[in-house]
Amino acid sequence: MAKNTNVSLSVIKRLPRYYRFLGDLLQNGIHRISSKELAEIMNLTASQIRQDLNCFGGFGQQGYGYNVAALHGEIANILGLESGFKTILLGAGNLGRAITTHMNFEEKGFRLVGVFDSSPNVVGGTVRDFVVQHTDALGTFCGEYQPVVAILCIPKESAGELVPKLIDYGIKAFWNFSHFDINSAQYPNVVVENVHLGDSMMTLSYQVKELVNPPVKE
Amino acid sequence: MAKNTNVSLSVIKRLPRYYRFLGDLLQNGIHRISSKELAEIMNLTASQIRQDLNCFGGFGQQGYGYNVAALHGEIANILGLESGFKTILLGAGNLGRAITTHMNFEEKGFRLVGVFDSSPNVVGGTVRDFVVQHTDALGTFCGEYQPVVAILCIPKESAGELVPKLIDYGIKAFWNFSHFDINSAQYPNVVVENVHLGDSMMTLSYQVKELVNPPVKE
Repeated sequence: MAKNTNVSLSVIKRLPRYYRFLGDLLQNGIHRISSKELAEIMNLTASQIRQDLNCFGGFGQQGYGYNVAALHGEIANILGLESGFKTILLGAGNLGRAITTHMNFEEKGFRLVGVFDSSPNVVGGTVRDFVVQHTDALGTFCGEYQPVVAILCIPKESAGELVPKLIDYGIKAFWNFSHFDINSAQYPNVVVENVHLGDSMMTLSYQVKELVNPPVKE
Repeated sequence: MAKNTNVSLSVIKRLPRYYRFLGDLLQNGIHRISSKELAEIMNLTASQIRQDLNCFGGFGQQGYGYNVAALHGEIANILGLESGFKTILLGAGNLGRAITTHMNFEEKGFRLVGVFDSSPNVVGGTVRDFVVQHTDALGTFCGEYQPVVAILCIPKESAGELVPKLIDYGIKAFWNFSHFDINSAQYPNVVVENVHLGDSMMTLSYQVKELVNPPVKE
């Protein structure tokens, strides 16, 4: 199937949502769906859906609609969900523990291979089936296992210190929960997906404020 | 100071990042900064910064730059960070516990007033200083305390069941970590801030795939 390799990141960011909805349809035994029906379930317009999915060669057939399993599988391929990229997690506090135990790494393109922390209270303990290692061991560990992704659940200051080292050790991608901004100009060959929970909360605060106390129109 | 009340959500979404950087400057004793200097720290252009901040009446003065404390305070006002919106959290599993203990609600516009779960293994236990209550008690609790925000750290199915009830009970805003899509067409007077960690992870998977195995150009 012809693929357009210049797909914009905004389209890519919408694909996981398609993937989730298509997975639900499959679970419910639905194997074929029109763009109109899919649009209704996803609260989109049929033309938005056709536009998004046409970027990848168009899986729909006039008068038939989409083959759910084929589309689901193709989106998984596009997103690389079977890649099993070797991943380490830094910071075994509350958030790091939640991510380690809560996320299904294997279904989302990743394979967790190590958990690190610098606190003596945490190092040596276990999270899921991982013994927490000291961050001092990162160099040796990365040399041996060559992980490419690091999940940062550490304070800003530690992230500022560790990010340059991790890049030296061969890390190419960050899932960044810390408040440290990884400078894309400084590290052009590194990809970063930020999850700033605090920023998300502040954005919600604004929206609640506007809803509950709408500004007086002058 | 004149305020434009029709600020786009994309500008609003950038304000928390300004707020964080300005807070850091204050902590480091810096009370005045030019848009050029701020741009450098934040990896933006000076004109982007001026454009964003002009939406709110413009705090910079020609030849002086920005008064850091005044701008920081004004952004806090705009975002409503002192609102203390009464908030409940649903789902005291790993993720819910991490959110409860990890986030500084009070500094971000919210006040956590209750934690709920439906599992008998969890109800009656404590998270931070909250005794976990059963979701069956939500109606009574909301009648008494009138929370306006609910944080959803529950499975999709539970969210589908609880969201309509919560809206009936007076909840006006959701910070949604569940994979349940709250239909904005169905609930036009409710605001939703989604944090789909799985989607974020899949987006990262795509980016890593493109970086590590770039597609062959034809």
